[in-house]
Amino acid sequence: MASEQGLKIAVIGGGSSYTPELVEGFIQHYNELPVRELWLVDIEPGKRKLNIVGNLAKRMVEKSGLPIEVHLTLDRREAIRDADFVSTQMRVGMLEARGRDESIPLKYGVIGQETTGPGGMMKALRTIPVLLDICRDIEELAPNAWLLNFTNPAGMVTEAILKHTNVRSIGLCNAPIGLIKRTAAKYGVATDRIYAEFVGLNHLHWVTRVDVNGEDKLDELLADTAGYSASNVPAREWNPEFLQSLRALPSYYLKYFYMTDAMLEEQLESFHKGENRAEVVKRVEEELFELYNDPDLNEKPKQLEQRGGAFYSEAAVNLMCSLYNGKNDIQTLNVANQGIIDFLPDDASIEVNCVVTKNGPLPLPLTKIPPMATGLIHAVKTYERLAIEAAVTGDRGLAIQALAHHPLVPSVEVAIKMLDEMLEANKAYLPQFFKASETGIS
Amino acid sequence: MASEQGLKIAVIGGGSSYTPELVEGFIQHYNELPVRELWLVDIEPGKRKLNIVGNLAKRMVEKSGLPIEVHLTLDRREAIRDADFVSTQMRVGMLEARGRDESIPLKYGVIGQETTGPGGMMKALRTIPVLLDICRDIEELAPNAWLLNFTNPAGMVTEAILKHTNVRSIGLCNAPIGLIKRTAAKYGVATDRIYAEFVGLNHLHWVTRVDVNGEDKLDELLADTAGYSASNVPAREWNPEFLQSLRALPSYYLKYFYMTDAMLEEQLESFHKGENRAEVVKRVEEELFELYNDPDLNEKPKQLEQRGGAFYSEAAVNLMCSLYNGKNDIQTLNVANQGIIDFLPDDASIEVNCVVTKNGPLPLPLTKIPPMATGLIHAVKTYERLAIEAAVTGDRGLAIQALAHHPLVPSVEVAIKMLDEMLEANKAYLPQFFKASETGIS
Amino acid sequence: MASEQGLKIAVIGGGSSYTPELVEGFIQHYNELPVRELWLVDIEPGKRKLNIVGNLAKRMVEKSGLPIEVHLTLDRREAIRDADFVSTQMRVGMLEARGRDESIPLKYGVIGQETTGPGGMMKALRTIPVLLDICRDIEELAPNAWLLNFTNPAGMVTEAILKHTNVRSIGLCNAPIGLIKRTAAKYGVATDRIYAEFVGLNHLHWVTRVDVNGEDKLDELLADTAGYSASNVPAREWNPEFLQSLRALPSYYLKYFYMTDAMLEEQLESFHKGENRAEVVKRVEEELFELYNDPDLNEKPKQLEQRGGAFYSEAAVNLMCSLYNGKNDIQTLNVANQGIIDFLPDDASIEVNCVVTKNGPLPLPLTKIPPMATGLIHAVKTYERLAIEAAVTGDRGLAIQALAHHPLVPSVEVAIKMLDEMLEANKAYLPQFFKASETGIS
Amino acid sequence: MASEQGLKIAVIGGGSSYTPELVEGFIQHYNELPVRELWLVDIEPGKRKLNIVGNLAKRMVEKSGLPIEVHLTLDRREAIRDADFVSTQMRVGMLEARGRDESIPLKYGVIGQETTGPGGMMKALRTIPVLLDICRDIEELAPNAWLLNFTNPAGMVTEAILKHTNVRSIGLCNAPIGLIKRTAAKYGVATDRIYAEFVGLNHLHWVTRVDVNGEDKLDELLADTAGYSASNVPAREWNPEFLQSLRALPSYYLKYFYMTDAMLEEQLESFHKGENRAEVVKRVEEELFELYNDPDLNEKPKQLEQRGGAFYSEAAVNLMCSLYNGKNDIQTLNVANQGIIDFLPDDASIEVNCVVTKNGPLPLPLTKIPPMATGLIHAVKTYERLAIEAAVTGDRGLAIQALAHHPLVPSVEVAIKMLDEMLEANKAYLPQFFKASETGIS
Repeated sequence: MASEQGLKIAVIGGGSSYTPELVEGFIQHYNELPVRELWLVDIEPGKRKLNIVGNLAKRMVEKSGLPIEVHLTLDRREAIRDADFVSTQMRVGMLEARGRDESIPLKYGVIGQETTGPGGMMKALRTIPVLLDICRDIEELAPNAWLLNFTNPAGMVTEAILKHTNVRSIGLCNAPIGLIKRTAAKYGVATDRIYAEFVGLNHLHWVTRVDVNGEDKLDELLADTAGYSASNVPAREWNPEFLQSLRALPSYYLKYFYMTDAMLEEQLESFHKGENRAEVVKRVEEELFELYNDPDLNEKPKQLEQRGGAFYSEAAVNLMCSLYNGKNDIQTLNVANQGIIDFLPDDASIEVNCVVTKNGPLPLPLTKIPPMATGLIHAVKTYERLAIEAAVTGDRGLAIQALAHHPLVPSVEVAIKMLDEMLEANKAYLPQFFKASETGIS
Repeated sequence: MASEQGLKIAVIGGGSSYTPELVEGFIQHYNELPVRELWLVDIEPGKRKLNIVGNLAKRMVEKSGLPIEVHLTLDRREAIRDADFVSTQMRVGMLEARGRDESIPLKYGVIGQETTGPGGMMKALRTIPVLLDICRDIEELAPNAWLLNFTNPAGMVTEAILKHTNVRSIGLCNAPIGLIKRTAAKYGVATDRIYAEFVGLNHLHWVTRVDVNGEDKLDELLADTAGYSASNVPAREWNPEFLQSLRALPSYYLKYFYMTDAMLEEQLESFHKGENRAEVVKRVEEELFELYNDPDLNEKPKQLEQRGGAFYSEAAVNLMCSLYNGKNDIQTLNVANQGIIDFLPDDASIEVNCVVTKNGPLPLPLTKIPPMATGLIHAVKTYERLAIEAAVTGDRGLAIQALAHHPLVPSVEVAIKMLDEMLEANKAYLPQFFKASETGIS
Repeated sequence: MASEQGLKIAVIGGGSSYTPELVEGFIQHYNELPVRELWLVDIEPGKRKLNIVGNLAKRMVEKSGLPIEVHLTLDRREAIRDADFVSTQMRVGMLEARGRDESIPLKYGVIGQETTGPGGMMKALRTIPVLLDICRDIEELAPNAWLLNFTNPAGMVTEAILKHTNVRSIGLCNAPIGLIKRTAAKYGVATDRIYAEFVGLNHLHWVTRVDVNGEDKLDELLADTAGYSASNVPAREWNPEFLQSLRALPSYYLKYFYMTDAMLEEQLESFHKGENRAEVVKRVEEELFELYNDPDLNEKPKQLEQRGGAFYSEAAVNLMCSLYNGKNDIQTLNVANQGIIDFLPDDASIEVNCVVTKNGPLPLPLTKIPPMATGLIHAVKTYERLAIEAAVTGDRGLAIQALAHHPLVPSVEVAIKMLDEMLEANKAYLPQFFKASETGIS
Repeated sequence: MASEQGLKIAVIGGGSSYTPELVEGFIQHYNELPVRELWLVDIEPGKRKLNIVGNLAKRMVEKSGLPIEVHLTLDRREAIRDADFVSTQMRVGMLEARGRDESIPLKYGVIGQETTGPGGMMKALRTIPVLLDICRDIEELAPNAWLLNFTNPAGMVTEAILKHTNVRSIGLCNAPIGLIKRTAAKYGVATDRIYAEFVGLNHLHWVTRVDVNGEDKLDELLADTAGYSASNVPAREWNPEFLQSLRALPSYYLKYFYMTDAMLEEQLESFHKGENRAEVVKRVEEELFELYNDPDLNEKPKQLEQRGGAFYSEAAVNLMCSLYNGKNDIQTLNVANQGIIDFLPDDASIEVNCVVTKNGPLPLPLTKIPPMATGLIHAVKTYERLAIEAAVTGDRGLAIQALAHHPLVPSVEVAIKMLDEMLEANKAYLPQFFKASETGIS
């Protein structure tokens, strides 16, 4: 640990367009989180972006006058060695793979989404082995480091790491902090006056309590859900009678389950018009990198905030601060269940409020679990566990089972056909599924 | 209890076409189950059928020479008073309601089935209050009686009784005994040489072990599933790769979940051709009653066996024998979970192997639970519990939640529209949902 | 609730010698806990002490210049009406009863202690019905109040309240805060830099982790347990080899279980010398009241700190502050188990770290449970649950079972004889056990 | 498996005086349990007894005219190879060690008993490693064999095997069958008309239900416990008021816990008189072997029945028959808990009614658990688990913890002193505890 002279932080996928936000966070919180070395690491194909965003980072630090060293590297092991915190934000297969994740399911009449449904499963199959590799490095080179995982599907990736490695890992999503920020704004209070209870999984949670200054405002919020949405999920209205009897605020990702038919129709429409969320994001990113490349820019540009992942960096810096200082404050994180949701296994990852102690997050018991939600939580977790094991083993049978048991997939037959096409399309990123045939050829 | 001079048995819905099977069972097992009084009870609209089938029952008993008294009555309380066993086999709303259960969902692109999905929910909403009324009578007039419940949806009805009454009740289905009989026939052994382990819920089970003379033949059976079906569920082939990786034999009702698209297509086709399972059953029943009416008939006619519910009576008589004699043999029954399926509440009904002691069935622990099945079991049980509470309370919000969370329903919007139509169509049988409006009229 | 113009606080047993500490706490924390009315309530026999301590309280408040009204009353209901917080610190049967609790068991060769063993059971039998009566008043007159219960045996009393009333109640003990204070002093850090994990029950806990500035110092503390004791438990040394293999710091009350023979010998010796802890306390109290009676005294006298219950008031004020302000800080409290100790029922009271939210304490999951401790925790909790039900029902059979199953009682025979003597000696305070005989006389 | 031409059975500790009972059982049940080879195996010091009892076995078989081969051997591996059933009945350290187990604790004022308390722990420390060695042989040479373990402490030995080996093992005790036989005799019915529910651990169970012909006779039995005892536990009367409020029949071994003082007094009296249960047994055994040695004897002598372990062989043969034939009958066995007692770990051994299927025993859920019993069950299981791990690892710290947490041990200090003496006295049989020092000497 380098913590005596300051912290070493490794950002894997450091060439991401989000990086300036993170750098801004480190600068703003320097007095409680004394970063000495910031290592931005990326892979060869991301070198250009790494250089652009890395140089912006250096200019930002220089402007701040703080003694933070910014290192750019393609050598992951050098970045990880003795790090105090490792964060990951990556996209195995890049935006091209995301485009396929979103479009292939549509051919089979199934929701095509980056983290939910068959698209999310493909992302998991590509991503989990890479993360586990990173964890091997952390186990060897920085066994006391905390791994903050932003890489989606964050819940599944976190569970894979908890089950298959000894790395101290926490999964993070910006949705909870987003809800808290919006509620604080709505009521004109500081965020620490909001206490919201989240029940469920990453991208599959229900909010069952929202206290503002200690008073439960859930009913008020259930009555007013206009605008309760996110920029990367198309906005549709919730049925008020349904929300009243549900007595919980569903995550906007739950629209894929509660409005499957309408969401699918919308996706198909966009698809046939040639629209493509991956393409949009790609364009936005290119514009951002053009801005970043301006040698006169030495702060986070405003445009970055319009991007989907608002508050990601804030969530990350908050978490690092609390772990480093043992703040014992409450944050919503993806951690091992440990009995909190009593029908899930202890080692399942869940999204839950935690007290962040110096020794890591302790999940808080849930005060209410909506009985309506239990089946869907368990159904999606069943799929997730099968998919994680498929990702680790490359077992085609498990992949079939995972997909066939996903609530959004209408039949075993569709599952198998769709899987075949998706495996083939992702072949370059799925060595675990193609070992046998490769051997067979030689 | 009348048991010293022989047993008193009350059959509610005694005018059913199945009754001759039951009578045959009592005659054949008389020496271990000494029935003294058999009360067949039905409601006014079923009087004609009750007389026909009741007179056949009397002729069958007369032929046997046994001292069994057969009583026909419309007075349920008289039938129940001091009974040792009460069995129920009824259809609230008769075959007309079944026709609606099967057809209304189809208009919304949803599976229309008597016990599974929205149709099953409507049946539950109609049936549970009637069963609970019967239980009030049993609590008062025959508190030590065993209630054997065949009335579908048998799992939900049993759970409602366990939760809301003090009656000792057991749910029964013919599917498990059917599987055992078919397997015994296939291997040419006695049924007691087959040990099959059932995991799940009524009409939602997986068979994870089939021992023939103590040897596990599951793999053999998975490889040969042709003809593994039931006459009331259309036959479609299981995908062999799917079965291999599932490592369990799914109930044929699971085709509605695993082959939703194809099953729906088939239903829609039949529907548009004007075919209708309820109509077919109606015709078959009419033919049976014509046969029963023949004053020369004094035995169960062969034609009855071609009807869907084969082995129902055998299951019932077996269970009564074991309870009466404390046989401690193993039967597959619907009982309270009590921790057997660790992720379900203790008071959830499950379908499980039980040792039938004189004091009732004790569920056996499961030796394998397919991890694939857990989510679907929990999702359907979630729907069931919400629907049971909706049936008991008449709470529209709960009914919306139940339907919206059923895995076969594609969206909240469809759930609400479909519910509205179904409630209206079943108005005559759902006083609990229309109390307010009735009051409103006066 | 009076909270707009400031808080109303009712202290039941307000004539206690501890009250000046509590008053000092309210004065010191006035800016975060704006107390408007402080009601000190006691029973007729305590009137003299109430007046003495109450007048001291008034002088202390006057000196502070704060707008706190101090009310002295014998009318419990007036004190409770609309209170925000109720705290209880009482001794049903007064110090005379304590003397009997401590001495009768000794005649049977059993540990005689105020809260542990047969003495603690007698205290529970006397105290629980009185507390439940108070709770009826709170339910009626201040349903939103928080009840802070210091009355021993605090764990059992809290469990009785949680099970048999709707009052929001929390049990408090000074032992956890004492350990934290001592550790902070030892390491020269602020108390909020100490994180100690407590596992077990009130007066029966093990400390499995003591972080100082985030570093685990458990091993250091295990190696140095000299002076690790409390003034009301005789000091004996822990065996170092035992502590090393236990890998936890046992509560000093655990000496009654781990050193039963030696502790008993010591008690017997004192007893035969005529020494008597109750007598000592009585003398100390009298001296304190003499001091309090001095009309020139207007602050808490130093001598009070030498009394056993140091930090009680600090614990109480801390808890009120956190509940009132929703501080979300961590405190060690007695609350319902809710799955934290997985082998105990959900409604068992345990002593555990909690996050104190505005809606009450949320217990934190345990990161380590010493496997050695599980049996003893369960054995004592078994006794506690039986004794609580005996206290509520007056069922002699349950009292026999409770005592016979207490780990410190050597046999059923001793349990029954000792119970008989203790019931008789406490007759005036145990109407629930003597209802029948009273009726019998008339 | 040799089962086609008949079964191979290996009896480890075959030179035991119990063996003729077992042989008689095999002869009587030959038609449902076709034993082809019976291997009696013992260690060198037991050779003389093996020959005597082995020759009697041969004469018994010869008289029966059955084609059973009896083999006598000192080669354990030869006996185990391809066996269908292995049974163990051994005494590591022989009766001399038992004498020490019974007498050393008395010096410290602690119950001295063969299976309960410190004596039982010493027996476990000596025995478990030997049993695990045998299991290694079974894993290698007869992986499908069933191991029937009679070796005491049977519950702990079974748990050690379940946790540390892959052998299919079942623990057996004669107490349950004894209770059923006595009850059947009392009521003049066949044993299969008795259904008794056992709750707890080996030598620590409560009987909560005794149905005779389906009627619960528990109250009758609680009212009449005279003579309810066993020949190897001194008879003392249960307190009737205690039994009434307990509402369960305690195992006679529970007298050591419920009447500790009186039982200890009795033991001390005998001890000071020079009486010694181990000595008595030794004499009885010698007399039996004299009888066995008579070349004219070709049947089990009557005198054997007066020995403590009546019904052991019957229990063993019953279990083998049910496993071999898949009888699905109910027997009381020691198996893994698997959730039956919800507060114990899944892999803890418990004594519980099981359905004996061809695939092994399935434990039946308990219909009542006396709340009084939970603490003591958990306390003793805590000791057992620590002692098992001490036996496997030779960790002195664990042994201290085990003994210090045993409910019969009055203090840590006594535990450590007593352990030191007992380890030293058993040195020859405890290589796992003396590895280091032996190495140290050389």
